[in-house]
Amino acid sequence: MKAEIITIGDELLIGQIINTNQAYIAERLNSAGIYCDRMTTVGDEAVTITDAFAAALERVDIVCVTGGLGPTHDDITKKMVCEFFHTALVMHEGTLAHINALALKRNISMIQTNIDQALVPKNCTVIPNVHGTAPGMLFEQNNKYFFVMPGVPFEMKEMVDSWIIPFLKKKNIGTVIQHLTLKTTGIGESMLAHEIGNVEDVIGSDGTTTLAFLPNPMGTKLRITVKDKTVESAHAKLLKAETVLRSKIEKYIYSEDERDLEDVIGQILNEQSLTLATAESCTGGLIANRITNVSGSSAYFLGGYVVYSNQLKIDELGVPAKLIADHGAVSKEVAEAMAYGARLTAKTDIAMSTTGIAGPTGGTPEKPVGLCWIGYSDAVSSFALKFNFGDNRIRFKERASQAALELLRKKLLKLQ
Amino acid sequence: MKAEIITIGDELLIGQIINTNQAYIAERLNSAGIYCDRMTTVGDEAVTITDAFAAALERVDIVCVTGGLGPTHDDITKKMVCEFFHTALVMHEGTLAHINALALKRNISMIQTNIDQALVPKNCTVIPNVHGTAPGMLFEQNNKYFFVMPGVPFEMKEMVDSWIIPFLKKKNIGTVIQHLTLKTTGIGESMLAHEIGNVEDVIGSDGTTTLAFLPNPMGTKLRITVKDKTVESAHAKLLKAETVLRSKIEKYIYSEDERDLEDVIGQILNEQSLTLATAESCTGGLIANRITNVSGSSAYFLGGYVVYSNQLKIDELGVPAKLIADHGAVSKEVAEAMAYGARLTAKTDIAMSTTGIAGPTGGTPEKPVGLCWIGYSDAVSSFALKFNFGDNRIRFKERASQAALELLRKKLLKLQ
Repeated sequence: MKAEIITIGDELLIGQIINTNQAYIAERLNSAGIYCDRMTTVGDEAVTITDAFAAALERVDIVCVTGGLGPTHDDITKKMVCEFFHTALVMHEGTLAHINALALKRNISMIQTNIDQALVPKNCTVIPNVHGTAPGMLFEQNNKYFFVMPGVPFEMKEMVDSWIIPFLKKKNIGTVIQHLTLKTTGIGESMLAHEIGNVEDVIGSDGTTTLAFLPNPMGTKLRITVKDKTVESAHAKLLKAETVLRSKIEKYIYSEDERDLEDVIGQILNEQSLTLATAESCTGGLIANRITNVSGSSAYFLGGYVVYSNQLKIDELGVPAKLIADHGAVSKEVAEAMAYGARLTAKTDIAMSTTGIAGPTGGTPEKPVGLCWIGYSDAVSSFALKFNFGDNRIRFKERASQAALELLRKKLLKLQ
Repeated sequence: MKAEIITIGDELLIGQIINTNQAYIAERLNSAGIYCDRMTTVGDEAVTITDAFAAALERVDIVCVTGGLGPTHDDITKKMVCEFFHTALVMHEGTLAHINALALKRNISMIQTNIDQALVPKNCTVIPNVHGTAPGMLFEQNNKYFFVMPGVPFEMKEMVDSWIIPFLKKKNIGTVIQHLTLKTTGIGESMLAHEIGNVEDVIGSDGTTTLAFLPNPMGTKLRITVKDKTVESAHAKLLKAETVLRSKIEKYIYSEDERDLEDVIGQILNEQSLTLATAESCTGGLIANRITNVSGSSAYFLGGYVVYSNQLKIDELGVPAKLIADHGAVSKEVAEAMAYGARLTAKTDIAMSTTGIAGPTGGTPEKPVGLCWIGYSDAVSSFALKFNFGDNRIRFKERASQAALELLRKKLLKLQ
């Protein structure tokens, strides 16, 4: 069975909001063995919405709609599904009780717009909205399933995970699709393709396996996909493709599936019972932020310094003032001294540092925008490596944080 | 004239990649007065791609396609446009020279896949790709414009900004669309709608103006849109709607248009010649990271402490050990002492702090997951406020950073 995702909202069409709902739903459907064939985004406009509903139900068996269920005047999706499925709104007592309970818990008073949220189309199955007030809906017609959800991501996600996916699994309509993703960094897409060589060596030639290259500023993901008859044969093909890939480009791979570098690092630090501190200048706290996005990171991450001013580099990390005067704050010597100082001050086993010119201004011919030194220090050695991460400030920070974490991974695994 | 955006790639349909290209292109088209009517995402699959091309050219005058132009085997878009526009690939010398130059600059050797990138359809106009190797293309047919770009966001963005938008402006085909966005925080969507009251008071009743509510965990954006005959009348209506809105909910508005709170804060700190430090526990560096995303932030942001361990809170910020023993690390007293200590240690005018339980584990009945104290300190006073940001770790960090920056904004503007 194939699915189609329809997201509704003018905010999407004018580009004010990035559509994260599509990807979330697609990923969840996919992991349940249901392939999403197309995604369509339309505005809060009656004719286009109806047109999109009709075209999708024509093409596929499962339609997931999000958006336009809110309490305000610009939300027309509920009205449109009513018309589309020739039904009328009725009060749903369960939803009303839920909205009352939410209001009580959040200590807010019920107003008419809240009560109206409990009105649902007569012939739908209500999908509870644990985190919000707008209920989801399921319409069943000729063995096709039409789901409608609010556009607020965490409300939608809960519905997908707790209700829709279990519902579809119970119907037993998925086929076998398996994916494996290998994340690489430190090598460009073309060179990666070159090192991999003939793709058929990896995926074979029976048409069941595909390999995709997904580049982004942090690195290139390699996604292997197998569509096969049984879980066992799909899994075997996935493993074979992985083995061949690893034999060619192992040293660039830092994780499988969707694990981020901060997760990988965290696990290794935990396993090796090591503690970490960070001393960030140009990355401005991004490395610490990424590390602390991992639940349980307090076990190995003791803390970090964001030393934007030279004075703080001196006062907090003990970087000698003369070193900054002689070499400049963006230098090999200062990067090393920052890492060394952070390790001693925070009393950790390891420390990482960054100092660079994130731009867009502040560069010189000798030290251009993009220049970055990444420092490392442990009980055995302290050193720093030179990089250039380009002239876009946000991308610079992302790339620098990625390179720092990758350097740490390689040191921990004795690959560098 | 209306536009449609087609994004191509299996990685989008399986939800592995969030589609940011759509939003970027739509926003740029919109600001040039061209309304995007629909967005469609399809996979790397010949029939569906051709089908999407044909349907879009049927419906609208401008089609923007991204994705599938890369150098690897899974990229079939160039082949598909060739078939669709009945043409063949030829070598484009200008592109080949550009690719050679790029390879030289990046110190990588040319391989056949790089050279093949310079092949383009015979009857297209080449759109230069400044940052990459895959050229963009324009096909003109019956006064319709069909643009094809690579899917790598920063390559695509440069093409849109430097080539496509100027091209469309020269053709003079846009109508007048104006938007104004007011960003609010610290109030829920329903209550905001309630305080605004009758929407017609804001947008009038002539049908030219619309008001949209765009909620997310950081707050709710209010977007006013006017589609009108002249720039002047559209602008006047926008201003009128803004004035009415501000008269009702001024205190929740922290910025207009798309400015983030960290930008707003930065401007105020600059204007008031004040310096800032941060002391973060539960937000783990996110506040410092947001502040340093702003170019020029080194003028007012001296640095930050990410004090995950209790020992660092004591050693770096001078939080009395007894305070932590008596009240716990997550407490009003410790939040205040962290802000106070950071201000003294970093020698800044102001410091902000956070201490809380980001979860998903670590809560107790008295101090549940989600609890967060946000501290503030300046020469006159130090205090802390209590919040609850829920049990999703990433959302918790986002909300806490937003509340801390909003508290700082209010203090700076003497609104709190």
